[in-house]
Amino acid sequence: MSAVLDRAADFESRLRAQGSAYHIYHPFNRMLNEGRASPEQIRGWVANRYCYQIAIPIKDAAILSNCPDREARREWIQRILDHDGHGEDPGGIEAWTRLGLAVGLSRAEVEDQRHVLPSVRFAVDAYVNFARRAPWQEAMCSSLTELFAPKIHQERLSTWPQHYPWIEPIGLQYFRNRLTQARRDVEQGLRVTLDYFQGPAAEQRALDILKFKLDILWVMNDAMAQAYGVA
Amino acid sequence: MSAVLDRAADFESRLRAQGSAYHIYHPFNRMLNEGRASPEQIRGWVANRYCYQIAIPIKDAAILSNCPDREARREWIQRILDHDGHGEDPGGIEAWTRLGLAVGLSRAEVEDQRHVLPSVRFAVDAYVNFARRAPWQEAMCSSLTELFAPKIHQERLSTWPQHYPWIEPIGLQYFRNRLTQARRDVEQGLRVTLDYFQGPAAEQRALDILKFKLDILWVMNDAMAQAYGVA
Repeated sequence: MSAVLDRAADFESRLRAQGSAYHIYHPFNRMLNEGRASPEQIRGWVANRYCYQIAIPIKDAAILSNCPDREARREWIQRILDHDGHGEDPGGIEAWTRLGLAVGLSRAEVEDQRHVLPSVRFAVDAYVNFARRAPWQEAMCSSLTELFAPKIHQERLSTWPQHYPWIEPIGLQYFRNRLTQARRDVEQGLRVTLDYFQGPAAEQRALDILKFKLDILWVMNDAMAQAYGVA
Repeated sequence: MSAVLDRAADFESRLRAQGSAYHIYHPFNRMLNEGRASPEQIRGWVANRYCYQIAIPIKDAAILSNCPDREARREWIQRILDHDGHGEDPGGIEAWTRLGLAVGLSRAEVEDQRHVLPSVRFAVDAYVNFARRAPWQEAMCSSLTELFAPKIHQERLSTWPQHYPWIEPIGLQYFRNRLTQARRDVEQGLRVTLDYFQGPAAEQRALDILKFKLDILWVMNDAMAQAYGVA
């Protein structure tokens, strides 16, 4: 019993250690959060991330459509409700669009994705295609970059109002919502991962999947650094 | 304008006319609803239909995962919430399982699908695979057998208590729920279909898709008739 707990704790700590490759350390993201970004760079980032935001419910629906476990689906579907909105809640995609408005983009130029860079799109597509084809537990595992997300959202909330007073504070609501949502979401992803990937080869597979997802987020930042420069 | 309305009304009436191939007219279904079925035949039907019930949220998630239209997703997701259950609602799959208990099956023999006939499974798989691969509007169109569902549910509610007094009335709750849900669901499917399939070739495609779905339900009944007989 204690060996099982040790195994899980060790595996979880190796998953968490991958956080060293999270895009919080990418030069483009550091520039954003350390206050060195121009309005154009911030707009470029928001416009490109929109492509990722709208892919999330598609990705999560792909996971549901591969998942025969009703209990797992009942939990996972909350992510789609959160992002698409449900009932009175306009949802996370709309919150992201409002961030776009707050940084000076028009709704049209956010929604028609005219600013989205090809390599950002390819990276996002790679994530969605993985979720379509992988076993649902692997696809859920790929969501575990959420382990590292609260810190990056908190950083934005802590630094942006000071560095970028020209951005309407209401525009940062997306990050506030995700602080609690990401903490709740990660529990299911972690539970499924610790349960499904057992043994050294399976654990390595999980670590590789998480690295793949970290690469997606990193490559998106590479593309933006190349297009918009890094101060 | 009135030509457009006439076109839509004519197309809708041709879709509705396909109801003549609905499995409400299948000898096996007529036997069930006219009170000539044995407990074994009813159990066989409930156990086999379970395979269809559990495929529905998988099918609907596949549609969501192919649908870039957020408003359409926000509406369609209600089907998954209804079938899987959400919050306090145990959902339609659980209601079907309780129908199984009411007709004398154990929960285990419903859920492990030991009674599901291969050709029933193949028919259900054909439906799910279509939804995975077809454009989301075509997959939504395939749901239009719901046009004909309220009548078959009402027939069951009207005749079963009299013909089969040994079935606990609470077991029929699934049919009661679907009476209202199917009426609401069909509105979106019909709206998308009338909007998307325009012109003679497209309308014919919609009619073919609906026929394909009618065939699925019919073939399931064929398989049960062959396995359990028709009185």
